[in-house]
Amino acid sequence: MISRYVFGTMIETEAILQKPEQAQGPLPFLAADEDNMSFTYEMGDSDIVYGLGENVRGINKRGWIYTSMCSDNPHHHEDSHSLYGAHNFFLVDGKEQFGVFIDYPGIITFDVGYTRSSQLKIKASDWNLEVYVITGTDLKDIVKQFRHLIGRSYIAPLWAFGYGQSRWSYMNEEEVREVVRNHREAGIPLDSVYLDIDYMVRYEDFTINEEVFPDFAAFNQEMKEQNIHLVPIIDAGVKLEEGYQVCEEGLEKGYFCKKEDGSPFVAAVWPGKALFPDMLNPKAREWFGNQYKFLLDQGVEGFWNDMNEPAIFYTEDRLNAVMEQLDEFKGKNLDTHEFWRFTGLISGLSNNPEDYKCFYHDINGEKVRHDRVHNLFGYNMTRAAGEAFERLEPEKRILMFSRSSYTGMHRYGGIWQGDNKSWWSHILMSMKMMPSLNMCGYLYTGADIGGFSCDTTEDLVLRWLAFGIFTPLMRNHSAMGTRRQEAYRFEKLDGFRHIITMRYRLLPYLYSEYMKAALRDEMMFRPLAFDYPEDKFAAKVEDQLLVGDGIMIAPVYTQNADGRYVYLPEQMKLVRFREDGSMEEEILEAGHHYVEIPLTDVVFFLRPDHLIPMSRGGRCVEDVDFEHPETIAFVKTEAFYEYYHDGGYEKDYENPEHITWIRMDQSGRIR
Amino acid sequence: MISRYVFGTMIETEAILQKPEQAQGPLPFLAADEDNMSFTYEMGDSDIVYGLGENVRGINKRGWIYTSMCSDNPHHHEDSHSLYGAHNFFLVDGKEQFGVFIDYPGIITFDVGYTRSSQLKIKASDWNLEVYVITGTDLKDIVKQFRHLIGRSYIAPLWAFGYGQSRWSYMNEEEVREVVRNHREAGIPLDSVYLDIDYMVRYEDFTINEEVFPDFAAFNQEMKEQNIHLVPIIDAGVKLEEGYQVCEEGLEKGYFCKKEDGSPFVAAVWPGKALFPDMLNPKAREWFGNQYKFLLDQGVEGFWNDMNEPAIFYTEDRLNAVMEQLDEFKGKNLDTHEFWRFTGLISGLSNNPEDYKCFYHDINGEKVRHDRVHNLFGYNMTRAAGEAFERLEPEKRILMFSRSSYTGMHRYGGIWQGDNKSWWSHILMSMKMMPSLNMCGYLYTGADIGGFSCDTTEDLVLRWLAFGIFTPLMRNHSAMGTRRQEAYRFEKLDGFRHIITMRYRLLPYLYSEYMKAALRDEMMFRPLAFDYPEDKFAAKVEDQLLVGDGIMIAPVYTQNADGRYVYLPEQMKLVRFREDGSMEEEILEAGHHYVEIPLTDVVFFLRPDHLIPMSRGGRCVEDVDFEHPETIAFVKTEAFYEYYHDGGYEKDYENPEHITWIRMDQSGRIR
Repeated sequence: MISRYVFGTMIETEAILQKPEQAQGPLPFLAADEDNMSFTYEMGDSDIVYGLGENVRGINKRGWIYTSMCSDNPHHHEDSHSLYGAHNFFLVDGKEQFGVFIDYPGIITFDVGYTRSSQLKIKASDWNLEVYVITGTDLKDIVKQFRHLIGRSYIAPLWAFGYGQSRWSYMNEEEVREVVRNHREAGIPLDSVYLDIDYMVRYEDFTINEEVFPDFAAFNQEMKEQNIHLVPIIDAGVKLEEGYQVCEEGLEKGYFCKKEDGSPFVAAVWPGKALFPDMLNPKAREWFGNQYKFLLDQGVEGFWNDMNEPAIFYTEDRLNAVMEQLDEFKGKNLDTHEFWRFTGLISGLSNNPEDYKCFYHDINGEKVRHDRVHNLFGYNMTRAAGEAFERLEPEKRILMFSRSSYTGMHRYGGIWQGDNKSWWSHILMSMKMMPSLNMCGYLYTGADIGGFSCDTTEDLVLRWLAFGIFTPLMRNHSAMGTRRQEAYRFEKLDGFRHIITMRYRLLPYLYSEYMKAALRDEMMFRPLAFDYPEDKFAAKVEDQLLVGDGIMIAPVYTQNADGRYVYLPEQMKLVRFREDGSMEEEILEAGHHYVEIPLTDVVFFLRPDHLIPMSRGGRCVEDVDFEHPETIAFVKTEAFYEYYHDGGYEKDYENPEHITWIRMDQSGRIR
Repeated sequence: MISRYVFGTMIETEAILQKPEQAQGPLPFLAADEDNMSFTYEMGDSDIVYGLGENVRGINKRGWIYTSMCSDNPHHHEDSHSLYGAHNFFLVDGKEQFGVFIDYPGIITFDVGYTRSSQLKIKASDWNLEVYVITGTDLKDIVKQFRHLIGRSYIAPLWAFGYGQSRWSYMNEEEVREVVRNHREAGIPLDSVYLDIDYMVRYEDFTINEEVFPDFAAFNQEMKEQNIHLVPIIDAGVKLEEGYQVCEEGLEKGYFCKKEDGSPFVAAVWPGKALFPDMLNPKAREWFGNQYKFLLDQGVEGFWNDMNEPAIFYTEDRLNAVMEQLDEFKGKNLDTHEFWRFTGLISGLSNNPEDYKCFYHDINGEKVRHDRVHNLFGYNMTRAAGEAFERLEPEKRILMFSRSSYTGMHRYGGIWQGDNKSWWSHILMSMKMMPSLNMCGYLYTGADIGGFSCDTTEDLVLRWLAFGIFTPLMRNHSAMGTRRQEAYRFEKLDGFRHIITMRYRLLPYLYSEYMKAALRDEMMFRPLAFDYPEDKFAAKVEDQLLVGDGIMIAPVYTQNADGRYVYLPEQMKLVRFREDGSMEEEILEAGHHYVEIPLTDVVFFLRPDHLIPMSRGGRCVEDVDFEHPETIAFVKTEAFYEYYHDGGYEKDYENPEHITWIRMDQSGRIR
């Protein structure tokens, strides 16, 4: 059951399209303190709090403060309070069981037992918000109700489930060709190459630098013939430059965010000084969405939206003010405090919260200061694209994922988990985020495999891939200046080929599970507790996940390890694919196990009376035979599998012909 | 066997006091490439590399690059290459077994299978160094030989094994009194309070700010009467200020480091502009050491030496140059690259490697550029103190630990593990460093419990304490601006009292083991592989340690966990002390176990036929009864314990009266 409580007058987020009637009476579970603008829940000692989407720390969020404030934060450290998304949904499981979604476009904080270990305290910046309280038969049911409330998740095209290779940046055609050629020659499957900011002219959105991509449409076609999709990046900021058409048109139409005095708000991002399309203004949004046509027309079928928190390197006004202030330090004997003040001026230039109070949106004629709706910006940039794709390419599924997000955006695109690091701990962080993001509707998601910033190591990439083969978005991406990490550059080539090929072998299962989760408002990645609610130990497991209906995974995320401990809530079949292509199966009893997992093995666990459809792999998604799945199974009495398989590109999702039932009995026969 | 190989002419480090004869012929194990100035060892697939002292990552150092370059690095991240110390000793265990110490005062890099997974490559900045290759009967034997070579480790006074409370900073007498009172009132044991930089006059070494400590000697005495030792910090940089005696005297005598032109090198640290005593000049060292007398005379018996990498916030010359350069950015439309160049100028002000090439030491009359001997600075600052203590207080043990270090410094003091963070991963990092540091002679060591920077949480402090009770240095320390983390501030007071009291109950064992390790050149903290060399699984365990002869520990280092997996290389007895004071014992078989460890339990594992002496605890070390130890034991046939117990303050370490044998037979009787 979903009850909607209204406090004040919320600036509409359009997170929820069909709102239930407003409930009367006091909020259940949460004590509302209007003076403090806070809600409090008294947790039991063993209560677990799930949710909050994209955030650091555990699957169980207890013991930290999380702030929904979309942030360009490249340091996903344990003490981070905010990443790129704002996902105000959580689930309490313990003495009581309920879900809460707080629809609120501004900055809001969730103190989950940080200040006082027994208190969950929610504090918004003002008191204009709507609270949805959801109860149900179990955790999965509550999530399903929430997901139904917020609408169907974005569905990616099938090719986007292939392996993608990215780098900031592949600088020209030849470099892209080389990446593709090296994968093909090494027998490492590949379906996409991502173009980071350097494909553009001076970082100008919706331009192609013809010096390095002289005929982009032809090149795109050349790549497609090799079953490679090029996926260009789109930034939120539009370069301020005379003669640059997007800039001039936007200025002319008044579609950029403005300062209080009505002049355009100028802040620097990649192109230097830039303007920010008013994504919250429906007309500006439509206009911005239409710009994607420039690339769609050249055959592009996928994009990633970046910098849309929005990130700000500096504002024109603040930089000028700081430059003035720097003078006063000249020639002085700076003591330490003066020195910190001096360096603080510089470090405070980027993403300064005060700057988010300096510009305004035009929301249906109302002038709204940005900070009040900060968390809606990236959402509406991606919505601009998604709505445009529906207009411009209604028959096609276009790949779209974003860095920033708010609930509602999940209908228009996925997200990647942002600018992580080549740290072992970030494998685990990514794992923990998967179910939290699934809860909030982000099914098409994954981390930058191998790590974005910092230098990676071969074993880190291998271990990360062995997890990444399960995430719908499977992309290897890394930053300028860091060690190159394309799979073919390393020594253990057979291992890389094997692990990445396993992705393609698992695709019939993974795609089927993804589609069912999307169409039924379910989670593809689940903590163990969601499927084994009676198992108290399962509730504490933070490093294993259920993937779809039939599989449990337990990735290795520590360096120099040969294996790891795995908890089995019930008897399961360990399935191991070795580098030489051989498969081993072993039935393990419920309980604790130490499982050896050499560096290039792929290991997962099949649940009893489950089977999964697999393929023989391929060089690319196009090669994969979805029509005649092979199966691996753990049948004790009988296993059924509801196999969802469509063409992967059309949109008749509900067509019953996409469903086939596979049944296996004890003898191993398929019916 | 130890063989010494000489390359070029090393600047003497005095790491080794009695050098073996120079060996002839080629280096064993390592291939020396003089052109590249590198040594290479081809590792076997399963070789493990131990050592390198204070560094991030695993007990097994494979898979990363480590650079010995003493660094003020407050970010102990997975991608860090250097922390505060330079510890050029490692052990290879695999197809061959040997230890290597590279005596070299400059910057040197250990690529342990990072660039190529099978290669260990060592590259020095020049070719003037000495290499010691050590072989022996096993890992412990090799370490023991190395430790014997470098001389006996520093021995701390007994009171320094009590619990210490620190904060940057307790600002005045009353605040210190309050900290002590709150501990005493809450029944939480305490032996020391640390004074961070604010006790001084304008951060001037060897001064007391009388506004906040009006009669420091009397206050120190008042504290001692409550069995509290005050431990002031000493910084490496001496404030440049007219009328400040240490500055003026050092300048007059020419004892500070100089620029090429002979003028004093000026760089800013806490006091703003400061001078750096030439710790490598024996006369300057003696002079600097004598300064400690100012505090010794007021009854101080312990110090911590900080900022001695040396840290540099900025140099006068670079700041002036940067200020000039800033002008060129004014009024310009900074594109991104220009903006990064602009911010890079500022972020490059601190600890800039170029600045370490701008000043010189006078080493026995020879002018030596700092970067060539960079890693010796902190070592010799602490040596200055240690040598002074021998002269000024020959009868006393003075507590001394340092942030920066090089091999040799371990004879004069311990180290703390530097400015860590309130991160769960930093509990594990601290654990992993303990054996690496022990190998290099640092026995008196420990991390800032609860974490120095970032906001802590109650559960983090509890879990960290439950590990910290085993480390010789057990200090809770945190940075200005972070959440307060004194034990008495939290809700679970009984839990804090219990865990910290357990330290005092374990003291007879811990001190005895520490003393034996120091006197016999052994490791108090050991990876499992050192004691169970035949056990292949034990070699991979990165999160359990042997502590002394009889105990294995397996701390919890993840949030919201109720326990953890533990590997037992042999049958052991689990010993559990619950918050209510009760003790439980359970014999566990060799192999894998999941052990429940509630938040306030203290759990460890007793090895078979071992016993450990314990006490009933106390409010402070003075209260602990070392004379009549109680024992807990796991006797299968017979257990002996060699109990080292002296007064804790005298220096007749070798006196045989300090040794008592405790024997227990199967019946549990003590003989």
